[in-house]
Formats: sequence, structure tokens, C-alpha cells
Amino acid sequence: MTIVGELINTSRPAVKEAALNRDKDMIIDLAIRQAKAGATFIDVNCGNMINNEEETMEWLVNTIQSEVEVPLCIDSPSASALDIGLSLCKFGRPMINSISDEDERYDAVAPLIKKYDAKIVVLCMDSSGMPVTADDRMKVVHKLRDKLANEGVKDDDMYFDPLVKPVSSVSTAGIEVLETIKKIRTDYPDVHFMCGLSNISYGLPNRAILNRLFVVETMTLGMDGYVLDPTNNKTMADIVTSRALLGMDNYCGGYIKAHRSGLLG
Amino acid sequence: MTIVGELINTSRPAVKEAALNRDKDMIIDLAIRQAKAGATFIDVNCGNMINNEEETMEWLVNTIQSEVEVPLCIDSPSASALDIGLSLCKFGRPMINSISDEDERYDAVAPLIKKYDAKIVVLCMDSSGMPVTADDRMKVVHKLRDKLANEGVKDDDMYFDPLVKPVSSVSTAGIEVLETIKKIRTDYPDVHFMCGLSNISYGLPNRAILNRLFVVETMTLGMDGYVLDPTNNKTMADIVTSRALLGMDNYCGGYIKAHRSGLLG
Repeated sequence: MTIVGELINTSRPAVKEAALNRDKDMIIDLAIRQAKAGATFIDVNCGNMINNEEETMEWLVNTIQSEVEVPLCIDSPSASALDIGLSLCKFGRPMINSISDEDERYDAVAPLIKKYDAKIVVLCMDSSGMPVTADDRMKVVHKLRDKLANEGVKDDDMYFDPLVKPVSSVSTAGIEVLETIKKIRTDYPDVHFMCGLSNISYGLPNRAILNRLFVVETMTLGMDGYVLDPTNNKTMADIVTSRALLGMDNYCGGYIKAHRSGLLG
Repeated sequence: MTIVGELINTSRPAVKEAALNRDKDMIIDLAIRQAKAGATFIDVNCGNMINNEEETMEWLVNTIQSEVEVPLCIDSPSASALDIGLSLCKFGRPMINSISDEDERYDAVAPLIKKYDAKIVVLCMDSSGMPVTADDRMKVVHKLRDKLANEGVKDDDMYFDPLVKPVSSVSTAGIEVLETIKKIRTDYPDVHFMCGLSNISYGLPNRAILNRLFVVETMTLGMDGYVLDPTNNKTMADIVTSRALLGMDNYCGGYIKAHRSGLLG
């Protein structure tokens, strides 16, 4: 299971302020808490700081790594910000968030995968826009997977994002994602998954319960990576519990440990 | 979704006492609360009252039906207790819990299905004992489904129980059940499912979270019926939320209604 901690993102006002003020303590605290809570990567995203994204990326990456030795997921719409962030990563192999089959994006990001021997989040999207059905997504998956494989990227380094959309606007939004996971898992047993799920609940009340149960449902079909807040105990309790139920936790050792730590409530 | 309310069962000490004392108010209260909370059937089980099970069954069925017009699920190891309970059912078509492919059990229960035009819970078990893998279960499913179909029972009236065993003793216990659901759903798209899930958590701490998430996981693969406590708001909230996520709740109407009623917490 790959957990990318999502908290260091300047779209969150407190993080933006910390980045503007170069508040090291706040950023380091977020990094330490996420790592302790089980993040296997820490996402770094300052894509909304359009005037000085590259400089901010450099400061964030260096600040996090001054205290925390967890691999980073460098997350940006800008290839040059990705490049700078990746060039500074010191601990383990970094992850790039993300590539798609939109022409410009693909051409800008593909070289960085090889340059930094990075893992890559792959959006099931091309220039024709957001897919609707699982079959729409699979057309993009087949094309992108083959293009990346031709460039020498291993299946084991690809993390597909099935593109989650709100069930409030289309009732089948959830099952199309579940179907996509099932199909990807069947066609490419060695690839991985990575995405945030909170879009699923957009426009509905009590979003937390929808987000948490959608983690459980996607895990049931083989999803093995999430961008989320690992300091949210309820989400992490659901993941630990699902692992036990899905036979991924020998002798329920992880579950019992989580119980003893108080995580299960 | 079929919800069988499990609370009227004399294996629960308070219910046994109520049955012994012929405490109508207690039984009626349990029936009303379960019906209000969303039970589509009410289970009636007094199988541990071996000296007067038939008399107790008669009293329970009549007592419940004196105030509540919900169909009943008559639940007993004894064919004669089933017969008496079924003969008294007044509201809708009753359900029998349960038949298996154990010779004696099959021969005793099969005639009752036709006699009372009942729906039937079908255990994936035969005389060779408890199955281990999904394939073990499917052998029994194929045999039992064909035998019942030959007797004129429709797929739509069969409710398969995939036989849940604890993940604490065998890590794969959960995935064998999930695999069974997937296979039954593929081979017989018109049959239904029915079982209690709490065995899954036997021997582990914090059983409630395991039980609840196993409902979500089994629903994800197409399970559509449960024997459970419908007055447990957390369980019912998870079911309502899963229905929205799984595209079974147009415009999320049921979810929003549950939110307004306070069910989602």
C-alpha cells in the first residue's frame, strides 16, 4: 500500500502562508506528522504560487528533507517546477505527479521520468478531455501504458489515477472508477494506482464518510495507492481494517497493532 | 437491498427471558424498532429453546404480527418449528432460514419452500462440512441451485449465504467470501444473497469496524442482503453511503435523506 501524504499543498491557506513566510517549523511539523502516521511519500505541491513556484518548490523540498527522510512526490502543472523539485530529492526514488496523454503534458513530463529514475502517476486522460466511462479510461490507459513501456518505464513504476468524479452529478461515477480499477488490474497485474478520492463526494453533505468508504470499495477491487491525509485516524483505521479483511495482513498483525495503538478508536 | 433484522433471537439473553415470560411489549418493541430502522424482514429464531421451540415460535410470530406488518424470516434448525412459524405468517411472502445440501436438512426443508411459497436462504454447505475456498463453495452452489430450480424455485427467490469464517484464523477467509460473491453474481445474475457477517471478526478486538467494513466490501462485489441489527446507525449509514457510491441511489436521494434524518452522524 502506497500512501502519499497530501498536506503540504499551498492550495491550503495555512500552508501557503507558511511558504510565503518561509516558516520552516510549520512545514517540518507537517512532514514529520505525515511520516509518523504512515505516509510512504510526501506530496509537495505549490502549483498555485504562479509567480515563484520554482523557488517555493526548492525551499519546500529542502526544508522537508532537512528533517524527514521520506521519498517525495513532486506535484505540479509546471514541468520546470517538477524538474527543480526532482533534482533536489535525496531519499529514495521520487514520484512525479503526474503525466497524461495530453500532448504538451506528455512531451514535457516523459523526459523527467528517465532523468530522475522516478515513479510516475499516470492520469487516464488525453487531449479529448475528461473520460466518462471505464471504457473511455481504458483506451487512454492502453495507449499511455504502451508509450511509457516503449520509453523503458516498468509497469511496477506506473501509478494509474482512474480519475474520480462526483457521484452527485452522475450516479455511475463511482462504479465507472471501480470498473476501471478492475480492468487495469486484469490487463496489467504489475502496475499500481494512485489518486485522491475526495472528488467522489463533491457537492454532498457529510463528505468524510463518502470519501472513507470509497477507499474501502476501491481497495476491494485492487487499488493500492492513495493521496490522502494520513493524520486522519478514521481513514487510516479503515485502511488497516480493510487490509485485514482482504487477506493482506498476515495473522491480522497490523490490525492488532493498530488496535493497541488506539488508532481503531 | 434486503435487510433481515436479527434482534428477535432467543440466543440473546434478554430475548430469551422475554420469550419465557411471554413479555409481549419487549418483543413488539424490538419488531417496531427494527421495521422503522429499515428491516425488510424480521428474523424469528428461538432455536435454543429446545424443550418448547414450536410453542415459542408460535407465540413470537403471533406477537410480532399483532403490531407489525413486515414479512418474517423464520429461522430454525428444526423443520417442525419452521413449519409452524411459516403457517402463521400473514404479511407478504416469508423467508426460510435456511436450507443446505446436507441430506437430512435438504429433504426436511425443501417441501416447506413450495408449501408456503417462501423465499429461501441457501447455505453453501453440504454433508462434507464447511467449505474452505470459493471453489469449494461454488461446487455446492451449482448443485443446490440446480436441485432447487428443478423443484420449481426461481433464482429470484434464492438467497445464497456464502458462509463467512473468521479472518483471525485464516487470513484468506474474507477474500474467499468476496470471490464466492463475484462467482455467484456471474453465474446466476438473478439470485440474491443473505447472511450475517459478524463471524468475520471472531477472535479480534474492535469487532464492529471489521463487521461494518465487510458489509461495504461485500456490497462492492454485488451482495444485496444481510442479516444484521438495523437499529445500529453506523451500519445503516455505511449501507446508505455505499449505495450512493455504487450507483444504486439515483441523485443520491437516499443519502441526502439519511443526512437530513441525522443517520450519518
